[in-house]
Amino acid sequence: MRDILPEDKVLRERLISSVRQGYLARGFQEVETPALEDLSRLTSGQGGDNEKLVFQVLKRGDDLDAAISSGSGLADLGLRFDLTVPLTRYFATNQAVLPRVFKAIQIGPVWRAERPQKGRYRQFLQCDIDIIGDASILAEAELLSASLVALADLGLDDAIIRINHREVLTESIAKIGVPKNEQLSAMVTIDKLDKLGIDGVIAELGEKFGKSVANAGFEWLSNLDQSRFPEILQPLVDAMGSLGSRIRYDASLVRGMGYYTGAIFEIEHPLASSSIGGGGRYDTMVGKWSGTDAPAVGISLGIERIIELASLPKEQTSSLVLMIDSEAITGQALSIQSELIAQGFRCRIEFRQKNFKVQMASLTKQGFEKFAQLDSGTVSASDLDIRMID
Amino acid sequence: MRDILPEDKVLRERLISSVRQGYLARGFQEVETPALEDLSRLTSGQGGDNEKLVFQVLKRGDDLDAAISSGSGLADLGLRFDLTVPLTRYFATNQAVLPRVFKAIQIGPVWRAERPQKGRYRQFLQCDIDIIGDASILAEAELLSASLVALADLGLDDAIIRINHREVLTESIAKIGVPKNEQLSAMVTIDKLDKLGIDGVIAELGEKFGKSVANAGFEWLSNLDQSRFPEILQPLVDAMGSLGSRIRYDASLVRGMGYYTGAIFEIEHPLASSSIGGGGRYDTMVGKWSGTDAPAVGISLGIERIIELASLPKEQTSSLVLMIDSEAITGQALSIQSELIAQGFRCRIEFRQKNFKVQMASLTKQGFEKFAQLDSGTVSASDLDIRMID
Repeated sequence: MRDILPEDKVLRERLISSVRQGYLARGFQEVETPALEDLSRLTSGQGGDNEKLVFQVLKRGDDLDAAISSGSGLADLGLRFDLTVPLTRYFATNQAVLPRVFKAIQIGPVWRAERPQKGRYRQFLQCDIDIIGDASILAEAELLSASLVALADLGLDDAIIRINHREVLTESIAKIGVPKNEQLSAMVTIDKLDKLGIDGVIAELGEKFGKSVANAGFEWLSNLDQSRFPEILQPLVDAMGSLGSRIRYDASLVRGMGYYTGAIFEIEHPLASSSIGGGGRYDTMVGKWSGTDAPAVGISLGIERIIELASLPKEQTSSLVLMIDSEAITGQALSIQSELIAQGFRCRIEFRQKNFKVQMASLTKQGFEKFAQLDSGTVSASDLDIRMID
Repeated sequence: MRDILPEDKVLRERLISSVRQGYLARGFQEVETPALEDLSRLTSGQGGDNEKLVFQVLKRGDDLDAAISSGSGLADLGLRFDLTVPLTRYFATNQAVLPRVFKAIQIGPVWRAERPQKGRYRQFLQCDIDIIGDASILAEAELLSASLVALADLGLDDAIIRINHREVLTESIAKIGVPKNEQLSAMVTIDKLDKLGIDGVIAELGEKFGKSVANAGFEWLSNLDQSRFPEILQPLVDAMGSLGSRIRYDASLVRGMGYYTGAIFEIEHPLASSSIGGGGRYDTMVGKWSGTDAPAVGISLGIERIIELASLPKEQTSSLVLMIDSEAITGQALSIQSELIAQGFRCRIEFRQKNFKVQMASLTKQGFEKFAQLDSGTVSASDLDIRMID
């Protein structure tokens, strides 16, 4: 976890606003869910390894006393590790008042109790869009298009999306001889291809499933035919028109979460060392909470990763610092500040500091361009002698 | 805690954006702090009764095992109960790279484990501005002016701010005979004036400090002279110019937090049953973390309270739904959608549903105005027959 400094926060809010506007323009609707969810839901087998990383919230009052004396669970709530589990719970709760096909935006922090390491935060911001209630490939095509356009609005025209399909993946895993009830375990291993390389993955497959699976696995992974999309994915790529050129087939793409059931995506950018987003179809999760399955697909942008790469157009606001020497002219300063704000300035009042040079340097760093000295004779903004900070 | 539905979320984001823009225009700088802080900091005596309401986060891994077997504290982190404690910690941590006088905006959720009751949430959004490093009344005057203007931008021109000063309050409490080391306890009682009424407060003062204090307290509270501001507050009101008419002296105003040291504020509105914001000066809190005191003052708006009252100008975007009958024309639909977005429309693609009337009613509720049917012959937006949803 970390503090966001003012310079970074400005960029962050502009980036969020740009993505939000792009998604709203497509008729998606923004929602908000609480940071805390029932711990039982967060550890119900939907989140893969992330379930082990939930920050758990201690029970309170009598409930805590009872838990301690009975030796039962000490925690009842947890901080969400993603936005998908809360969204499906939200849909199950509020379905009666939501559109039949629900196109949702959710932007908010998620928490994972990872060991601190470079580039990984324990609180980070996700920006998700999801479509619940639509089983057609319009849903996938729209999410992928919307994400690519949102990234292009941030100057990331070179982002590409690798896709795979859980059915195709499952078939390949069956073919190399992994028993049906072990497929998820095999996926967890194959998901480490980035980290372990092919030799590491093959070694782990061997440990888990024996030499014959390892051999067949090596054969498969070293001869992946990714020259054309599998039949099941081709219509999706076609539907995306010119943006279809930004989609790549990745036959060994897995995605960690247990909940995916169809197409899966991972967004990458040539300048980013790891993926900047991802998602997929998860047609059975809503049913876990409501009892009735609803087709659903989502994609998530990782704001911390994207902010390192984004370039936004410069802001156009003029900025000015009103310098005062004495508390006695506070009233005047506030009144002239209002006048300048009405004229479109971003305007801060500051006491003139003894070390004027240091003060000017700090203001430049904060993005201020101009300043003017206010004295007891200044009655309106037109009396000011406005100068550049140099 | 609760879910925010799409219609409410739109309003909420527009409201936040309006307040943010108003504060940025005055040269305040936005920051962000993590939701979790060290539990020891959140329970160090700064937060009054709120410290009892902290959601505590269970230690993890070996630390938790060690805590259980040694019987020491089970939690090491907590969700913040306000934005002031995190801001002062932030200032202490980052002071070297922040301006000498730091004018901060912080907008974010806070958590309190209150018993559920009407109008109280366990997660709610605060919007704070604070000035750290300025001991002059410019700081108070600017915070109060900025808040009143921000509220006026939301249509709340009738908001007023009640103010008091901890020194004046302390003097009054001393005069009725409360011993110096019991003053905070007396404040806690007087703070209940709203809830208990004067008789209830006097009874509690009697229980705590005896009959003589109760009698003197009754004399004081039933004859409060609030016709003019105490000398220490007058310059602040004068500095606010015409906005000074929106400030009222409230001689029995306390504010719950232990950390206030000077002026204290509470914002109210004739249509709101409880305060919609508040704050005050807290000159000793930064020193608690950094070892060196820094003058500081802040004011907080409660977004959940304000959203009930706010009226924002209607949005100007045209909105349109593109109806399709078949998955086969997904590609066309996405391409025409892009065209319409470029023309300034908010544009959603939807499959035409069997019950068209119900679909239209849902779209109206979601704020869509127009629709157009797309078929295989539609090649550009100019081919569309755009109709009003009636």
